[in-house]
Amino acid sequence: MNDIQSQIIARGEEILKRMESQSKASIFSKDFWYGSIMEWSMKNEKFKTNMFRFVDVLPSINSGDEVSRHLKEYFAEDGGSLPPVFNVGLGLGSLAPGLMAGAIKKNVMGMAKMFITGESPDEALPVLKKARKNKMTFTVDILGEATLSEKEAQDYSNKYIELVNWLAKDAQSWDEIPQIERDHEGSLPKVNVSVKMTALYSQIKDLAWEESKKIVKDRLRPIFKLGMDKGVFVNLDMEHYAVKHMTVEVFTELINEPEFKNYKFFGLVIQAYLRDSFDDIKNLTEFAKKRGTPFWIRLVKGAYWDSETIEAEQRGWAIPVYTNKMESDANYETCAKYLLENIKFIRPAFASHNVRTLAACMVYAEKLNIPKEALEFQMLYGMAEPIKKAIVDMGYRLREYAPVGELIPGMAYLVRRLLENTSNESWLRGKFADGKTTAELLKDPAQNLAHSSPDRYKKAHRFYNEPLLDFAVPSVRANMTKALAEVKATFPIQVPLMINNKEVRSEKIFDRVNPSNESQVVGEIHMANIDQAEQAMQAAQTAYKTWKNVSAEKRAELVDKLADIMTRDRYKLIATQVFEVGKPWNEADGDIGEAIDFCRYYARHMRELQKPLRAGFTPGEVSQYIYKSRGVTAVIAPWNFPLAILAGMVTAAAVTGNTVVMKPAEQSSVVAWGLMKMIQEAGFPAGVINFLPGFGEEVGEYIVNHKFTTTIAFTGSKAVGLHILNRASYVQPGQSHVKRCIIEMGGKNAVIIDNDADLDEAVDGVLYSAFGFSGQKCSAASRVIVLDEVYDRFVDRLVEAAKSIDILPADNPKAYMGPVVDKEAYDRILGMIADAEKSHKLLFKASVPAGGFFAPPTIFGDVPGDSKLAQQEVFGPVVAVIRAKNLDQALEIANSTEYALTGGLFSRSPANIARVKNEFEVGNLYVNRGITGAMVDRHPFGGYKMSGVGSKTGGPDYLKQYMEPVAVTENTLRRGFAPLEE
Amino acid sequence: MNDIQSQIIARGEEILKRMESQSKASIFSKDFWYGSIMEWSMKNEKFKTNMFRFVDVLPSINSGDEVSRHLKEYFAEDGGSLPPVFNVGLGLGSLAPGLMAGAIKKNVMGMAKMFITGESPDEALPVLKKARKNKMTFTVDILGEATLSEKEAQDYSNKYIELVNWLAKDAQSWDEIPQIERDHEGSLPKVNVSVKMTALYSQIKDLAWEESKKIVKDRLRPIFKLGMDKGVFVNLDMEHYAVKHMTVEVFTELINEPEFKNYKFFGLVIQAYLRDSFDDIKNLTEFAKKRGTPFWIRLVKGAYWDSETIEAEQRGWAIPVYTNKMESDANYETCAKYLLENIKFIRPAFASHNVRTLAACMVYAEKLNIPKEALEFQMLYGMAEPIKKAIVDMGYRLREYAPVGELIPGMAYLVRRLLENTSNESWLRGKFADGKTTAELLKDPAQNLAHSSPDRYKKAHRFYNEPLLDFAVPSVRANMTKALAEVKATFPIQVPLMINNKEVRSEKIFDRVNPSNESQVVGEIHMANIDQAEQAMQAAQTAYKTWKNVSAEKRAELVDKLADIMTRDRYKLIATQVFEVGKPWNEADGDIGEAIDFCRYYARHMRELQKPLRAGFTPGEVSQYIYKSRGVTAVIAPWNFPLAILAGMVTAAAVTGNTVVMKPAEQSSVVAWGLMKMIQEAGFPAGVINFLPGFGEEVGEYIVNHKFTTTIAFTGSKAVGLHILNRASYVQPGQSHVKRCIIEMGGKNAVIIDNDADLDEAVDGVLYSAFGFSGQKCSAASRVIVLDEVYDRFVDRLVEAAKSIDILPADNPKAYMGPVVDKEAYDRILGMIADAEKSHKLLFKASVPAGGFFAPPTIFGDVPGDSKLAQQEVFGPVVAVIRAKNLDQALEIANSTEYALTGGLFSRSPANIARVKNEFEVGNLYVNRGITGAMVDRHPFGGYKMSGVGSKTGGPDYLKQYMEPVAVTENTLRRGFAPLEE
Repeated sequence: MNDIQSQIIARGEEILKRMESQSKASIFSKDFWYGSIMEWSMKNEKFKTNMFRFVDVLPSINSGDEVSRHLKEYFAEDGGSLPPVFNVGLGLGSLAPGLMAGAIKKNVMGMAKMFITGESPDEALPVLKKARKNKMTFTVDILGEATLSEKEAQDYSNKYIELVNWLAKDAQSWDEIPQIERDHEGSLPKVNVSVKMTALYSQIKDLAWEESKKIVKDRLRPIFKLGMDKGVFVNLDMEHYAVKHMTVEVFTELINEPEFKNYKFFGLVIQAYLRDSFDDIKNLTEFAKKRGTPFWIRLVKGAYWDSETIEAEQRGWAIPVYTNKMESDANYETCAKYLLENIKFIRPAFASHNVRTLAACMVYAEKLNIPKEALEFQMLYGMAEPIKKAIVDMGYRLREYAPVGELIPGMAYLVRRLLENTSNESWLRGKFADGKTTAELLKDPAQNLAHSSPDRYKKAHRFYNEPLLDFAVPSVRANMTKALAEVKATFPIQVPLMINNKEVRSEKIFDRVNPSNESQVVGEIHMANIDQAEQAMQAAQTAYKTWKNVSAEKRAELVDKLADIMTRDRYKLIATQVFEVGKPWNEADGDIGEAIDFCRYYARHMRELQKPLRAGFTPGEVSQYIYKSRGVTAVIAPWNFPLAILAGMVTAAAVTGNTVVMKPAEQSSVVAWGLMKMIQEAGFPAGVINFLPGFGEEVGEYIVNHKFTTTIAFTGSKAVGLHILNRASYVQPGQSHVKRCIIEMGGKNAVIIDNDADLDEAVDGVLYSAFGFSGQKCSAASRVIVLDEVYDRFVDRLVEAAKSIDILPADNPKAYMGPVVDKEAYDRILGMIADAEKSHKLLFKASVPAGGFFAPPTIFGDVPGDSKLAQQEVFGPVVAVIRAKNLDQALEIANSTEYALTGGLFSRSPANIARVKNEFEVGNLYVNRGITGAMVDRHPFGGYKMSGVGSKTGGPDYLKQYMEPVAVTENTLRRGFAPLEE
Repeated sequence: MNDIQSQIIARGEEILKRMESQSKASIFSKDFWYGSIMEWSMKNEKFKTNMFRFVDVLPSINSGDEVSRHLKEYFAEDGGSLPPVFNVGLGLGSLAPGLMAGAIKKNVMGMAKMFITGESPDEALPVLKKARKNKMTFTVDILGEATLSEKEAQDYSNKYIELVNWLAKDAQSWDEIPQIERDHEGSLPKVNVSVKMTALYSQIKDLAWEESKKIVKDRLRPIFKLGMDKGVFVNLDMEHYAVKHMTVEVFTELINEPEFKNYKFFGLVIQAYLRDSFDDIKNLTEFAKKRGTPFWIRLVKGAYWDSETIEAEQRGWAIPVYTNKMESDANYETCAKYLLENIKFIRPAFASHNVRTLAACMVYAEKLNIPKEALEFQMLYGMAEPIKKAIVDMGYRLREYAPVGELIPGMAYLVRRLLENTSNESWLRGKFADGKTTAELLKDPAQNLAHSSPDRYKKAHRFYNEPLLDFAVPSVRANMTKALAEVKATFPIQVPLMINNKEVRSEKIFDRVNPSNESQVVGEIHMANIDQAEQAMQAAQTAYKTWKNVSAEKRAELVDKLADIMTRDRYKLIATQVFEVGKPWNEADGDIGEAIDFCRYYARHMRELQKPLRAGFTPGEVSQYIYKSRGVTAVIAPWNFPLAILAGMVTAAAVTGNTVVMKPAEQSSVVAWGLMKMIQEAGFPAGVINFLPGFGEEVGEYIVNHKFTTTIAFTGSKAVGLHILNRASYVQPGQSHVKRCIIEMGGKNAVIIDNDADLDEAVDGVLYSAFGFSGQKCSAASRVIVLDEVYDRFVDRLVEAAKSIDILPADNPKAYMGPVVDKEAYDRILGMIADAEKSHKLLFKASVPAGGFFAPPTIFGDVPGDSKLAQQEVFGPVVAVIRAKNLDQALEIANSTEYALTGGLFSRSPANIARVKNEFEVGNLYVNRGITGAMVDRHPFGGYKMSGVGSKTGGPDYLKQYMEPVAVTENTLRRGFAPLEE
């Protein structure tokens, strides 16, 4: 062990010794109930989950009965009694849950109060002052709900302004306490506040990087200015990784502005658990050198480890954090050392509850001859009291991170703290609960360090979705901008037919315009005539004779190749959709991702399905169950997922050994032509997939009726779907197969908002489900059924959120919503809105830009469940909010339509979630999330009742529909002898 | 070790010593090629299988090219070279397969000649005489093909008559050799023949026990008589266990007839590997005591071990043989001892190649003071020469079992011998190939004997079919006779409707007559009217509201209960079918078995399907894929599998959570009523399954069109099926679901007979597939496509076989075939036959009884593949035989219909089998077996093209059709925390 390590350990031992000399109280025993709950949570993962969830929902429950119900639902799943920990903890013996409810709510609230200084600055102030007496200073943070609207952003901003004014004023009367209010260079501000960027602007979008940054800076500037003017320290807190890059840019740009350039007391946070944190610190140091005036960096480990890993895995992105806790600890010390070496340029504040880390910072500083008063340590209010006391006693400056705020928004903060304290990797847990040895507690984290990988480990037998683009990366945004320009330069794109791999032209040309810009012709579509449709059918029928004998492996390879080409051409494909159907960037990107997923999923699944299943296990017989192709498939596709749905149907048909005639929607033939060209490039043999743009009532009808057609894959309107079903049921002369229809139609999808819903999530989820791509998804939310108790609060927030969104041409990255697909759709939707306005309460109708088919996001309130507005599909950005007196009624209303496609529920009641899962008649039910954006494999998609027939796309039964199961039985007994088997 | 065991071992050692003193030749080395082939077979199971199969097919292949092709297909699967054993064995170096073919064929034929004394008695005689010179006598057996027709039975009988006459005549000139032609009581016949019962009558049926026995005795009597008159020994050989009981009865009854009662030289065989063999010996001893004159018993181990175990497992019957070889050996000694103790009444002949066994017999005899000349040992010609010589040298009488016959029929015999010699359990293999020690070879088999169970071991995760009845068991036949009488006594059975578990009567009565007996009214069916159909739909719709929430487990239990009731009432259910639809006993039994299987399979499968599948594996999200019910199901059933198909559709619908209105066929409403009563008894709640007898065009149409109907399950004609599909595609006002049709229609099923087919199997398989239940199965064979080279031979045997079958009222157990279902069907079929006679070559048309709807089995030859007769479904006992010049053409013809239901192939070419599996467009393909009789799980059943839509009954995808897959996705991330998973 080298000299430094010995010194660090010695220092650590000193801190530990000082801690032990205090009263035996520890974080886990100072409150008996809290302590026993924490102990149970650490022992029992399921209890921990339920406890955290219960804690989370509790503030939003009002009556004792409801507390009691939730208590039972979370902790007495078997219908029996609560775990003894509640009784023991409360010292209440075995009370009935009803009687315990009050006591438990009180205790949980008490738990929150341990970590939150007060519900208001008024309440917090005495707490802060008391801490000062113990030589601990503070930084105040205002806890808030998620900022969903500009109104909420403004409210939050106002609160900070008030807070700074009020604290600054009060502080005038405070005596200076040198240990905490002076450093090696002089006085420090007595008041210190921490502010969060996302709270100040509700529409931050990576896509609209510069625009978003500009607005955020505009919102922060008054707070920074006021802080500077009042001599207050202003920290910009760090949040999730998704906004890290922007936070760093906002902070540096802002404090580099002339008016702020010379103020020392601005601070930023760096999270050492981030793989790129050391690089950030180096860059910030360079920046600080240039700026001249130092600023502060609070070095933390990072508090969002669980969600950062989960969200990165969900997106398929690199995991931004170290997944080995020791790496974070080691990196913290590396960063700390670097910061101390550059203390001339940057002032460090070391935030940690880990004694090893604290000791290392002290020792490194001493080695650099940095005086004690130049160091600052920060810890969270309500945690690690013995450590705080030891640090203070050693003469260091200690600052508590002191949240102020109401309990509902405070719950997120509380859960984060509970998680921290019960995590297997927590230093505090190691010390106070698990009783680790001093050597373990103080060991060098860099010793024998195992390095984790940012890439997630993929299991061979599982499917992984293609990640979406990360628009936070500058090159991604640049590529997108370039692709838009390049694609635009090719307009109008010529779209011929493709039959037998040969381009075929037609006399009839359809001009497709950009729905964001009526005057721009995107494509000139050659619309097929009947003769050409017949040629396509003949080509497909001829190609089938050989294609069906091509091995499944070879077919799957071609489909995988197609996915590779889509991946390569991703930006171009996105750009085409943006212009042709008016999809905002991110929605278009999702469509390409889904198309790639369909290809890969179906290729993979076909490789599985080609393996014969064994039927029965009888000696003397080998019986196999094998899937075979059917023949020519007519694919008739919609425009709303112009690449994904078309590619999904076409590849499903082809990979299963069928040949295809595909007829795209008139509105998205340019995108479809792109698919056809990629299919050709991938190397599908001539005639296997043929391209037949045209009018549905003409060539669509013709291929549906055709005697060669064996399977019809259609996604579109109910009217057309039912018509196809009927036409397909007539047998044509010479027809060889009973036609099979795989048909997806509309929806009138409802989201139920339970009384105990997390409204932060509910409002956000409903808003995007209703208005994403202008509501033009069969999965879109068009009915929101809200329980009476939360109705007003939900509707207020929803309307405010709706007011805040940007409706812009789809190629503008700032667009939350673009236009609807064409004039016909626009007229229909506007007509329906006008009609609804006559009889329903209009809560909101947006104003929209001119020059394109911009239908206004519209919200109606108190809509009766049986009204036309609540029953008829709009396929546009129109939401009917329906009031329900309870869950029974909500379910009744939800199930009252002829559709059964998607549905949603926001609730934190386990029993209600279980009930709705069982009773809500929908093909795809989403709980506590938005109801659009189904992903291949994760959310096999499709509806029933009048929403469709056939099995879900991107699911385990989908491909089988394009095939016939065949049983082949061989008698293996010959002359009384059969080979041994199994 | 006791005294006896020591003596047996000593004697065994003496025999072994005598064997060793001979030349080193052993069974495995005396012929170099044979020896090396046997050695490879013992080392390599796959080579052994292919070798036996190649040996089996070889005699039926004529050209060198064909031999070469088969050689490559069997042994050079990778397209490469043959295994070196062929070259080494032949000493040919590495010749091309083409050149080797001749040599190999010659060697295989040589192998056969090792075990067969000659192709004719002429050829055999010198062989037999030569053996006599070595003091070995014989019993001659004539090898034959399977006896498929009465003509073949007659030929076989004639051959025996000739053989006995001819040998007896020649033997007059033979000098007596005392060691083999005298026993302790005097002279023995010089000539000894062995005859097989099944060769003498082609229509032996367990069901018609007494009738079959009578005919068999009539056929045996002349041979026994001639033998007696000529002083020849006549043995009745023992064959498969299926005919064992009858063989014993035939033998004892015959030799007890006055004319035979005093003749000593009749013999029967007992197989010691049978679990009931010792009981048989005791019974035969009692019989012998009563008869007075002794007869002979040849005690063997038994030569059909593989097929006995396989066939018992296939049928689900108790395994008749000991499955532990040591048990057979021990039982042999027990039986031998008993026989020796009763030598006064029965003369034993010990047939074995096991030295331990032989030694035991000798020692036991000595202990009983039985003189050496009273013992006879028997061994197979061509095997175990050193043992034979030792036995002869020791002064015992040795008789060779000496087959005479052509090589094609001889192959079954050859394969049995090869199997015996390469079996892991063979004593000869132990001695000559595996080099076991003397102690192992001679050890007491009864020592530490592990007893095997006759019941097969069932694996929990597998489905096992309900066994069919074993009509060889007297009580089964008696139960059946009783049930027929009891059911008949209840005619006419009243069949009301059942709605909501209440019987409902109608004004309109339909009289259903017995198709075997037009004058007998089986049931009076109340035919529903439209009002009643509406009531049934309402009942089902109401019941659905609660039934859908009944747990899958509970639903499965009810369906299992139904299966239990069917099992209990089996005989009654069979009897009802026999009378109502004219099904012969065994066919009716099969239908009940299938009904039970459907219930158990669907119940079992539903228990699996109720478990949600996990969709995707993304942290922070739990996504489940769940199957839910749809609603009211209309079940419209056919009469041809009156219980099975109806029960299958009804239980599939109900177990998946749907409610049902079932409309049975008019012709089988009595059977359907029986099902309804059982459903009621099982305890299904009111309204879940409703019974609606009536006319299809009236109430069938009504329920298809009904708005409550969500799913339609139909099996029946193409015309009605397509009509339903069309009707279902219209959406009715108030209809909530797109209707789903699960429709099975007709077939025009072909069987292809390849040049190298095993005609014994092909003729038998085609005959039953065509005429079983009068061809009234959608799976029935109605086209037989025969390759030119075997056409004449196949057709001759098929026509002769057809001539031999019995067409009788279905309640007569002798009936191979009964009537067709009703007058309408009869008229239609007769019309089609008359029509076909005008333009096609009639090969055979049976004469049929009067009084019922007996349609004659009819065969047309050289029918063009595109003729109406070859294209139109007959649904009666009419077969079109089509000639094809090669397999290409055969497949082209086979695939030329609009149907794709079942198909068959008889071939022994691995490449042709693989090709046909791939190219023959049928839902169920059967290789080397009949094409009807699909069993649940083993043969998931159903067709495509114009034969049906929907997935196979009794298969893994069937139940899913009655359900909707639903995806339920829960976001489990709350406040940045999600429970750990996986």
